[in-house]
Amino acid sequence: MLNIYIAGAGSMGCRFGYQLTKANNTVTLLDEWEEHITAIQSKGLSITGDQEDNIDIPIMKPEEADQSADLIILFTKAMQLPSMLQNIEHIMNEDTKVLCLLNGLGHLEEIQKYVPRENILMGVTIWTAQIESPGKVKLSGQGGINLQSVEKTGETFGKDLINIFNEANLNAEYDQDVWPSIWRKVCVNGTMNSTCALMDANISEVFSSSHGYNLVEKLISEFVQVAAKENVHLDADEMYDYVVSASKKVGEHYPSMHQDLIQNKRLTEIDYINGAIVKIAQKYDVETPYCEMMTELIHLKEDILL
Amino acid sequence: MLNIYIAGAGSMGCRFGYQLTKANNTVTLLDEWEEHITAIQSKGLSITGDQEDNIDIPIMKPEEADQSADLIILFTKAMQLPSMLQNIEHIMNEDTKVLCLLNGLGHLEEIQKYVPRENILMGVTIWTAQIESPGKVKLSGQGGINLQSVEKTGETFGKDLINIFNEANLNAEYDQDVWPSIWRKVCVNGTMNSTCALMDANISEVFSSSHGYNLVEKLISEFVQVAAKENVHLDADEMYDYVVSASKKVGEHYPSMHQDLIQNKRLTEIDYINGAIVKIAQKYDVETPYCEMMTELIHLKEDILL
Repeated sequence: MLNIYIAGAGSMGCRFGYQLTKANNTVTLLDEWEEHITAIQSKGLSITGDQEDNIDIPIMKPEEADQSADLIILFTKAMQLPSMLQNIEHIMNEDTKVLCLLNGLGHLEEIQKYVPRENILMGVTIWTAQIESPGKVKLSGQGGINLQSVEKTGETFGKDLINIFNEANLNAEYDQDVWPSIWRKVCVNGTMNSTCALMDANISEVFSSSHGYNLVEKLISEFVQVAAKENVHLDADEMYDYVVSASKKVGEHYPSMHQDLIQNKRLTEIDYINGAIVKIAQKYDVETPYCEMMTELIHLKEDILL
Repeated sequence: MLNIYIAGAGSMGCRFGYQLTKANNTVTLLDEWEEHITAIQSKGLSITGDQEDNIDIPIMKPEEADQSADLIILFTKAMQLPSMLQNIEHIMNEDTKVLCLLNGLGHLEEIQKYVPRENILMGVTIWTAQIESPGKVKLSGQGGINLQSVEKTGETFGKDLINIFNEANLNAEYDQDVWPSIWRKVCVNGTMNSTCALMDANISEVFSSSHGYNLVEKLISEFVQVAAKENVHLDADEMYDYVVSASKKVGEHYPSMHQDLIQNKRLTEIDYINGAIVKIAQKYDVETPYCEMMTELIHLKEDILL
């Protein structure tokens, strides 16, 4: 039985913690949010939405963890990753596997500072979840996970992990090339999410305007161009169709960056999404003015609101 | 005595109408706004702010005007200019002079369709004013006007007009090259105003963030580059210093585009400001992605809010 830590017990960390625990895995949540930790320690983790449930699950601050980890699932907000890695270094040994499911780009470079590449797995998930209040998480809808070990030597473990996730109904798939899926999600985040956050609008509102389409098209073309430089194939038309169809399916939805910035007055992950594109583009002398301006605008809005 | 029409009786048209009438000129206001016309016709034009006053001044719809005009001062919102010109064509004769004091770029081309170039004067004003309610305008602070006749043959009339304006305390100056002043105002509007409208913020809030500075710097550089192509010299450092010093003087102010979009839920003049830069830049194959994205974003916000 693996000793699993989930580093970052936000809505998604709680979803995974809940589903993995229900499937009889040994899971500990790690987080820094006092009220959330106290609530779960005293009353358990409450689940609402598609089902109502309550489970006991250990949760503590990263520095309080004292068991060696077999697997750590990283689920922090992007900007919290460096400090989380520092704070969990003491539970990692030379065999500890680390799966990154964060939004955005640039995380592998950070994780490599602490973990040998053969122990790292990169993944992407389209599951969603929402914190209702400290200790209470709303789960609704279906999702999935794609993941891949960074080095070929990690593939066996990666496939074992697929089984563990699927026993927990997390709908996982081993992906021989996970990077296009990671970039695709970054592209969706950097078009719909950032635009909705900036506009204080939901997805339908953005897509009910031809100017919303124009913006999304321009942003997508920058993502596609920079991805190609990194040898990741994204198809512009396919991306465009994807976000347009998503706008029809989940139009009333306020994406996570809107939740962060507008609803919860928290810093966004913009530097790891549009900002990451700008940074990568600079290496190749590619111009990405739309991503650059979006990054500046979201930061300006953070400075005004926070 | 000149027969003067002011075409567009918004806050600025009312300021000019008020001050010119007080200096014993014959002035008629033209506008389409029913409540405003009815209020002024029944109760006069009320002035508040630096002074309290009330005057009788004729106001009517443009199509109702029936006297030939000696001078028409154009003071509509930029997008209302084409229909206003159509609606006042019948009061123009071959000697009618037309002074354009609109915000933005591209108006001369439109006016030329109706008025011979030797009768056109272009100007820019930094006076401000605010409609408090139909028929009531708040005047505060000082301002000025720069103007120039489009053709040298119009210069004598232009200088007569300076005297008329100065007798009305409108602080006018004949400018041997008015275009840099016009562009300078467009540049201020296209940096501070559009950013404040987009962010729903006042000038101080935008300038309290380094990201506000970055945006303004990028936008200014596009204005300067496109102005140069049109043989108008704008100095980037001077423009930058100007908006920064303005931010310190009038930081609590919400600029006019914010008033239009956020406070009054009206369409903005963005197509004649940042949008005009994009259009002119295309003639010269110059890239203006920041102005382009700002234009799309403001239009998207219009579509969402209106």
